[in-house]
Amino acid sequence: MIDQKLAASGRSGNIIREISEYGAKQAKLLGEEKVYNFTIGSPSIDPPRCVYETMERLLATVPAAKLHSYTPAAGLPEVREKAAAFLNRSFGTAYRAQDIILTPGTSTCLAVLTRVLLSGGGRAMTFAPYFMEYKYYAESVGSSLTECPSDPASFQLDLDAAERALTSDTVMLILNSPNNPSGVVLRREGLEGLAALLERKQREYGHAIYIVADEPYRDLVYDGQEPAFIPTLYKNTIFCYSFSKSLSLPGERVGFMALPPALDDYDDIASAILAVLRAFGYICVSNLWQRVAVDCLGQTGDLSVYKSNRDLLYGALTQMGYSCVYPDGAFYLFVKTPEPDAEAFCRRAMRDNLLMVPGDSFGTKGYVRLAYCVSRDMIERSLPVFRALAEEYGLGR
Amino acid sequence: MIDQKLAASGRSGNIIREISEYGAKQAKLLGEEKVYNFTIGSPSIDPPRCVYETMERLLATVPAAKLHSYTPAAGLPEVREKAAAFLNRSFGTAYRAQDIILTPGTSTCLAVLTRVLLSGGGRAMTFAPYFMEYKYYAESVGSSLTECPSDPASFQLDLDAAERALTSDTVMLILNSPNNPSGVVLRREGLEGLAALLERKQREYGHAIYIVADEPYRDLVYDGQEPAFIPTLYKNTIFCYSFSKSLSLPGERVGFMALPPALDDYDDIASAILAVLRAFGYICVSNLWQRVAVDCLGQTGDLSVYKSNRDLLYGALTQMGYSCVYPDGAFYLFVKTPEPDAEAFCRRAMRDNLLMVPGDSFGTKGYVRLAYCVSRDMIERSLPVFRALAEEYGLGR
Repeated sequence: MIDQKLAASGRSGNIIREISEYGAKQAKLLGEEKVYNFTIGSPSIDPPRCVYETMERLLATVPAAKLHSYTPAAGLPEVREKAAAFLNRSFGTAYRAQDIILTPGTSTCLAVLTRVLLSGGGRAMTFAPYFMEYKYYAESVGSSLTECPSDPASFQLDLDAAERALTSDTVMLILNSPNNPSGVVLRREGLEGLAALLERKQREYGHAIYIVADEPYRDLVYDGQEPAFIPTLYKNTIFCYSFSKSLSLPGERVGFMALPPALDDYDDIASAILAVLRAFGYICVSNLWQRVAVDCLGQTGDLSVYKSNRDLLYGALTQMGYSCVYPDGAFYLFVKTPEPDAEAFCRRAMRDNLLMVPGDSFGTKGYVRLAYCVSRDMIERSLPVFRALAEEYGLGR
Repeated sequence: MIDQKLAASGRSGNIIREISEYGAKQAKLLGEEKVYNFTIGSPSIDPPRCVYETMERLLATVPAAKLHSYTPAAGLPEVREKAAAFLNRSFGTAYRAQDIILTPGTSTCLAVLTRVLLSGGGRAMTFAPYFMEYKYYAESVGSSLTECPSDPASFQLDLDAAERALTSDTVMLILNSPNNPSGVVLRREGLEGLAALLERKQREYGHAIYIVADEPYRDLVYDGQEPAFIPTLYKNTIFCYSFSKSLSLPGERVGFMALPPALDDYDDIASAILAVLRAFGYICVSNLWQRVAVDCLGQTGDLSVYKSNRDLLYGALTQMGYSCVYPDGAFYLFVKTPEPDAEAFCRRAMRDNLLMVPGDSFGTKGYVRLAYCVSRDMIERSLPVFRALAEEYGLGR
């Protein structure tokens, strides 16, 4: 009596977790120091001190029946107020508390918005490479995701490709910057061009096209980058943020989305979001964690660790002859594989206990993703293995 | 472009929250002590000390990158192991760690299981009075919920009514004991009768009928009650538990479901649950809270407070002439209204700032729900208002 397609989709699993579990098994067998696991994008640095200071203060001053009570589905009013004020202060926007909807991270934002925005029968689109769950969300509501290639030399937006990929049933465009898996930060000029294109297409199609800006890595940028705030470039943008990476709290599940007051069909969308949260059985985000997170807005752990990992790994790999677009943010390198079949390359590397995720899972063939939110020590120990692989493939000759 | 039915369902809201928000407004206007708010079922007693002791211990001993990392979608292996061991120790069952799936509370269990179990086209059924979200979940997956009346004198199962209500497309039967809104604990004999009926109907229909045992109030029982553990009476039972009420942590969102190893179509159901959790954008339950909660399994706050509230309120109201089934558990009284229209009665009481939820929202006309997880002081202050109402309606004459 259980729908077989549904059951089968639960069996397919997530290739990142699969490879990572193989790594854990090998680590047990051979010892941690013999396995080089670059598969999982989970923060390796400590949360900033404000996380624990705020938690301590709340536990000492807020009565338990209030600190752990249900909150309204969209979050505590004071938490929504603080998030709106932070965005307005940072980006000159005009969000009201009511425009902020707390969620357990951007995955929830995306799953819910996919259901809401595609409920009228439209379709979603994104630029490859992209986070594989986008496709799962779109297909799980009976729709589909169009994958538009990025400029392969830079992984920046390719506006000509975007114009070709847009169709009259595109209503949702997911952007992810800094990008998982490439680490690339979308440049302002490209985003301005995209905004102009979408404005034109909205008029042509006679309906709204919404950008969903998936930005859990927003604060993880190096070299003084200041990523553009997309809602200031394009009105119909729903900004999705998570504290998972900035506060190193991926397992605690706090984030939010922000609906601009001028969003087309604001009331329908806001109501439908609450309806879907309710239908999915979301009651509220952890009361304690939403208070803690919002009081640490704008803070991060010690990002110099990630920057130094990136510099080490990017520098070493490119010197060995690997080719990789320079990543300004997040904690990933997206490396071109020395043979066209990325899975074959991953399998070859696995024999040396070097674990990476094939780029096919991100809609882009011929690449592997390396998560460098790992110990510097492991990166250093892995370099001879990368070098041996490079030599085997004749790189850098 | 947004589906109008979806948007409309987000606007309808939740009547409990509406009345409660009116209460908050009145409290601001008139002062807290002038409003008698019995609408919200949120624990009023402190969490047991183990909650804070465990949290402190974990924060001091587990490295942050581990304590706040992503966990597998179904929960940390050691947490699942502990939950299974606890159930087996308490009820003589044979759950394995893999049978336990952590969720952010029973609402998620119900929303997900509704989608999974009704995915083949079947329908859900429950006994009235019942928690209103059951219907919302069933309708949100394009199915429906059959409401079968309970015995009106006791709110125990009415097996004749159940036999009449079951049809060949019933695949999911939701039981809720201790019950929200009636506080009634289902008796073992009734459950045994139901199990026999369902066994017979399974054979007759040629397919499984699953009991979903929604038991967030399981530990809130008084007078030495020991609620039957339904999975030991009926094989095809999925047990759903939440720490919200037992540990007074409703806003922190931790619970789990347990699939018996012998469940019909176990593999399909387990896979489909993971597929739906993924499609809904659930990544995992808060890492910190799942560790804390499972280490406090079997503990509760000081339940004598609820018992004493129940005794006070039940005693006073029945003495005034109100009629109410004696509640063995949870923290609700379900009181027969002195006029048939419960909403009219609630509106009348609201004029005196006495706030209750009409039973219509629980599929049962002519009743109001009173949540007595409030201060004893408020109960005492409310009694003259209840008395004046009783006199106005000529009760007890």
